[in-house]
Amino acid sequence: MLEWLRHYRRAALPGDLGAGVVVAMMMIPQGMAYALVAGLPPVAGLYASILPPLVYALFGSSMTQSVGPMAIVSLMTGAAIAPLAAAGTGLHAVLAAQLALVAGAVLLLCGVLRLGFLANFFSRPVMSGFTVGSSLVIAWGQVKPLLGAAPPRWHAPSAMLGLASLALLVLARGHLAPLLRRLGVRPVAADVVAKLAPMVVVLAATGVVAAFDLGAHGIALTGPVPSGLPQLNLATSPDHWRALLQPGLLIGFVVFLISMSAAQTLAQKRGEKLVSNRELVGLGAANVASMVSGAFPVTGSLSRSAVNFAAGANTPLASVISAVLLALALVLPTGWLALLPLPTLAATIIVAVLGMLELDTLKTAWRYDRGDALAWLVTCIGVLTLGVEAGVIVGVVLSMGTLIWRASRPHIAVLGRIPGTEHFRNVDRYPAATSAGLLILRIDANLFFGNVESVNERIEDELRAHPGTRHLVLNMLAVSSIDTTALFALAELNASLKARGIGLHLAEVKGPVMDRLRDSSLPDQLGGRIFLSTAMAADHLNSTSPEKDPR
Amino acid sequence: MLEWLRHYRRAALPGDLGAGVVVAMMMIPQGMAYALVAGLPPVAGLYASILPPLVYALFGSSMTQSVGPMAIVSLMTGAAIAPLAAAGTGLHAVLAAQLALVAGAVLLLCGVLRLGFLANFFSRPVMSGFTVGSSLVIAWGQVKPLLGAAPPRWHAPSAMLGLASLALLVLARGHLAPLLRRLGVRPVAADVVAKLAPMVVVLAATGVVAAFDLGAHGIALTGPVPSGLPQLNLATSPDHWRALLQPGLLIGFVVFLISMSAAQTLAQKRGEKLVSNRELVGLGAANVASMVSGAFPVTGSLSRSAVNFAAGANTPLASVISAVLLALALVLPTGWLALLPLPTLAATIIVAVLGMLELDTLKTAWRYDRGDALAWLVTCIGVLTLGVEAGVIVGVVLSMGTLIWRASRPHIAVLGRIPGTEHFRNVDRYPAATSAGLLILRIDANLFFGNVESVNERIEDELRAHPGTRHLVLNMLAVSSIDTTALFALAELNASLKARGIGLHLAEVKGPVMDRLRDSSLPDQLGGRIFLSTAMAADHLNSTSPEKDPR
Repeated sequence: MLEWLRHYRRAALPGDLGAGVVVAMMMIPQGMAYALVAGLPPVAGLYASILPPLVYALFGSSMTQSVGPMAIVSLMTGAAIAPLAAAGTGLHAVLAAQLALVAGAVLLLCGVLRLGFLANFFSRPVMSGFTVGSSLVIAWGQVKPLLGAAPPRWHAPSAMLGLASLALLVLARGHLAPLLRRLGVRPVAADVVAKLAPMVVVLAATGVVAAFDLGAHGIALTGPVPSGLPQLNLATSPDHWRALLQPGLLIGFVVFLISMSAAQTLAQKRGEKLVSNRELVGLGAANVASMVSGAFPVTGSLSRSAVNFAAGANTPLASVISAVLLALALVLPTGWLALLPLPTLAATIIVAVLGMLELDTLKTAWRYDRGDALAWLVTCIGVLTLGVEAGVIVGVVLSMGTLIWRASRPHIAVLGRIPGTEHFRNVDRYPAATSAGLLILRIDANLFFGNVESVNERIEDELRAHPGTRHLVLNMLAVSSIDTTALFALAELNASLKARGIGLHLAEVKGPVMDRLRDSSLPDQLGGRIFLSTAMAADHLNSTSPEKDPR
Repeated sequence: MLEWLRHYRRAALPGDLGAGVVVAMMMIPQGMAYALVAGLPPVAGLYASILPPLVYALFGSSMTQSVGPMAIVSLMTGAAIAPLAAAGTGLHAVLAAQLALVAGAVLLLCGVLRLGFLANFFSRPVMSGFTVGSSLVIAWGQVKPLLGAAPPRWHAPSAMLGLASLALLVLARGHLAPLLRRLGVRPVAADVVAKLAPMVVVLAATGVVAAFDLGAHGIALTGPVPSGLPQLNLATSPDHWRALLQPGLLIGFVVFLISMSAAQTLAQKRGEKLVSNRELVGLGAANVASMVSGAFPVTGSLSRSAVNFAAGANTPLASVISAVLLALALVLPTGWLALLPLPTLAATIIVAVLGMLELDTLKTAWRYDRGDALAWLVTCIGVLTLGVEAGVIVGVVLSMGTLIWRASRPHIAVLGRIPGTEHFRNVDRYPAATSAGLLILRIDANLFFGNVESVNERIEDELRAHPGTRHLVLNMLAVSSIDTTALFALAELNASLKARGIGLHLAEVKGPVMDRLRDSSLPDQLGGRIFLSTAMAADHLNSTSPEKDPR
């Protein structure tokens, strides 16, 4: 904890300072916008950007992760609370904070139980399909505030401001960085400045609103933002804890997946080591802090963390600086924050989520592995048709289904001797000779509950294909572990083969596997023997008959 | 379909006939008892034993499976309907039939989608813990009918009859088969006759009830059983479909797991092949048939199927015969069925589920793999404290967690050359020599989303441990597949190594893996080369520097 601070080098300070300023400027419009996505007052998004990143800096393990509001998590928050309270009400805000507590508690618990390996739960196609589906849902949800009325209607002044903001942001997104580069700005600096376009557009729109009193023309504004730091909020609504349990679990899960995928991308770029169990604790503590601030669930966001990284962040001090700046913004007069036009904020959200609409994963998967492409499509369509929460469940089921399916199809080869050598190879690929009555199989997978049945089926298939078999030798060179289910399956296979007059032998059992097997009764009950090498097994069994060699 | 009938050999008939009679005699008390467990009138258990096994005989793939009511599935049925309707009401019966339809539809759908591999979903310890927990719940639920009143109270005549029946059944269970064997009965026949003890005890108790008019003394009886075959029942209660969806899904899942585990045990004994996708269709169709009969979810039961097998069943004709016999029993006068005393039926249930209380799996797991033993305990305690439905979910989560955990820890070895040879081996286990600047890693697992992160972490760890590395060679001999997630991870690793001036090379890539990789852009972008053998890679890379050998 705080190792980065103990070993802080002075040289890291300029980078951290610059990144802190940039991220704070990015956070103001983003935090307010994502609070709106969650159905909350905009100031909640600022609260979510102060204490949570500070707490994450204490407990997390990533150096450049920027923790705070994030579009998909806000969408899930809004969807989870919608059935319980109307958006904008006090109850809605209380429930959002409670949801952050539930998600935080789930993450902390997983961290204490060292369940960091769960970050491997989603395949990349499933995660990508989920992200794209969620982005479309978020973008669609912002069309109404963008136009000032539900389409196909629109409110002309709002729509003009919204669409103008959108056009400016799209232009800045596509052309600002190249333009700056052509003007001689360093590429990294150009990219970072381009990322500040939302802040500039929001400020400009706010200026226009103030100058022409557009609020009076019916353009919706954020409204008064209470000055001062967030109040400690421990208000609870006891009736709703049960209803928040499942969404809190799912949100905690998604918070972890999104944050880990962002942190891993950056850690690889910096050659850094990420500790997934510490990430769980860091994110869990950040969400508890968000609850205390009266905010809503937060996570590490790839887009913001990438800016933090590009702007020069070396350590979590960058996040501390940006949190302090945001706190200052709330302590200073906040009158100008009340004049932010919602159509412009909607435009910033739409442009932000359009950046998450990447189809590369789908394209690559389509060429490389049609099954993975299908998983992408099913997850995306699941989010669009069933909602974001059901989309997570669809993703889990698909990922787990894929996992079991893959695990349940281990490779098994029939081995034969390469004539004149001690080598045994797959008879399908090498000119290897088998001998009558002796069947040698190499199992190319660890044996565990997910594949014991198919291993068993395959063995029975081969026995049917080699009807005169008297000895079955399993080459165990590729087997690094045998779980309890597989131990029982081996014992049952042994008993069944014994009853049919076939000896079961093992060869090339790895040391650690053999040590474990000695704790079981299998070696004693084995109908055959355990051989050091396949060649020794073949030589011995070819010269004896099973009746003469009972063990 | 019906292949067994087309190739029916006359010699199989006596065995099938005998087994059909035995199973029918076993079915009568068992079916009625398990209907009571599900909160249904006893006759529903008989209905569930006629059409479902007939339909399973048409579609299933197991030769000796006996499909019908089963204790755990009945417990789940009762638990699922309890919140929706009171036991014994007409609505309860309609919902039970609908639940069979939902479970059947789920199974059929899984069969059509060829999801038979899901039978590998539960590890054996989890399945065993679930079975033991459920058995205890069922046994405890029968204490009240056994004693005629909720303990600590009891109704003296009921308790006397119930405890006497229990004592007789426990005696028969432990001592009848050995006694018969000592009297010269063949061991298999002795075992089969012993299994008929429940029928004999029930008949005797019914005789006692009739002779002494015990119904008048307050002993609860089954009550009038409507004569005749089940009426086609298509009554629906539209409001409840939604509420039945989740339990129907869980019941379908458990039906499949229980039936497959029974069928696999017997198929192995007979050296037969089981087709899991056909089992899904057979069980699905049987449950739809159960709905049509106005019954409740059914499955293949190990205890009954084992009796069927031991009594000589050779083909599904045995099940057809037992179904016909049960239908006859309903067509003939059914007055005697009304006098079956419930305390005796409760005793048969308790003795039946005590047979499922096996602790061998726990004991073996405790000695062999403490983690598996823990999974057993957590699942069992989950069923006891949270209920049978939550127990299934706990089991799924535990099994999946174990699966990901195992999959996420692939074995990776640093290889070195055995001096004077072409062989490369794990430096931890062999006196193998590494050379400066060249790091060779062997990845002993298929690469997929579940392990890419830990492979990546391990590679970075090794690079940190070998700071002078200029070339990283991945030996891919043990890698049989690379999914889309792993493809992206390799591409990102390649880019990251390139940026650090390290060449990434592959060696001994299997043919099918290489064919797939050619569909991607990885071979073109690779910072290093793809070598046929590790020795060739080492020879080439030791004689060149990375700058001189860009590809």
